[in-house]
Amino acid sequence: MELILASQSPRRKEILSLLDIPFTIAVSDADETVDDSLPPYFIAESLSLKKAVAVAKNIDTEAIVIGADTIVVSEGKILGKPKDDADAFSMLSSLSGRTHSVISGVTVLDTKCAKSESFYVETKVTFYPLTDKEIADYIATGECRDKAGAYGIQGRGGKFVEKISGDYFNVVGLPLSKLYQVLKKEFNIF
Amino acid sequence: MELILASQSPRRKEILSLLDIPFTIAVSDADETVDDSLPPYFIAESLSLKKAVAVAKNIDTEAIVIGADTIVVSEGKILGKPKDDADAFSMLSSLSGRTHSVISGVTVLDTKCAKSESFYVETKVTFYPLTDKEIADYIATGECRDKAGAYGIQGRGGKFVEKISGDYFNVVGLPLSKLYQVLKKEFNIF
Repeated sequence: MELILASQSPRRKEILSLLDIPFTIAVSDADETVDDSLPPYFIAESLSLKKAVAVAKNIDTEAIVIGADTIVVSEGKILGKPKDDADAFSMLSSLSGRTHSVISGVTVLDTKCAKSESFYVETKVTFYPLTDKEIADYIATGECRDKAGAYGIQGRGGKFVEKISGDYFNVVGLPLSKLYQVLKKEFNIF
Repeated sequence: MELILASQSPRRKEILSLLDIPFTIAVSDADETVDDSLPPYFIAESLSLKKAVAVAKNIDTEAIVIGADTIVVSEGKILGKPKDDADAFSMLSSLSGRTHSVISGVTVLDTKCAKSESFYVETKVTFYPLTDKEIADYIATGECRDKAGAYGIQGRGGKFVEKISGDYFNVVGLPLSKLYQVLKKEFNIF
């Protein structure tokens, strides 16, 4: 059966590749507007479902579609991708010396039997205190631009992370081990 | 000042590269015999010191040498690299459904002022329960061969890891953020 990842993120593609199963990429044109008053895990799950459904509606054959959405929550506030360098500076300052949450919502959807399973995984990430110079130097690398929360744990941002509690790949963008469990137990893949 | 990584591990090289500072690699011929009766953190630190010293003794100029050693401890037993597939099977069976520790010892040594700083970082890793077939399939990929504890968290082994508590890069082989703190605060790099 065809497996489709409804995400253009090269990081998600790389993580899913670790499962050694063939899959293709489809671009989702889902409306990503969210109601910020809802709890973060609900937002992440809803967006993952929207993305999977948007791809599934264009498919006639039987396929399993995986949608995913990752959000960063610090002090009760959702941090998206930074709008500009000043926004990135503000985000990184708010993460400095504190613990925040990274929540990925995932939906696995079987287009034939219309079965779908949504779940979320939360990982706590603790930053060392950062100086303004460290933040400015990091922003200058350009790494933060396309990343929720303005950092990449898998890259230069990793040196700021004292510890995490939870799944590492979840922070990068796709909760690998939980997804593997769901594909295995609920969709009989593997 | 020259920075030297006393390790041939391509994974450690990749992690250290995230700090954006130039460094070279030197092979350490340190005797890696250890006294298993000592506590694991002491063994990891001692081996990192031995590796750094073995490289430093061949250097005439001023340089900062980084030695590192990573060990896996499960149920009080130290797991090294598997001797063969049967050994890998036994190790992975013992990790299944349990939490184990990965401890990296690191030594940073300045060859000129003979200043050295050793530390260790511990990360707890929790595996999902594994079936015999999952273990056998994983061993067949060959990934476990050169890895302490017989798995690579950064590769296909990642799908077995439910969660970690601590530094992810420490499990891969080098505790990036703590090393960055020590280089910055104790050796005035950055």
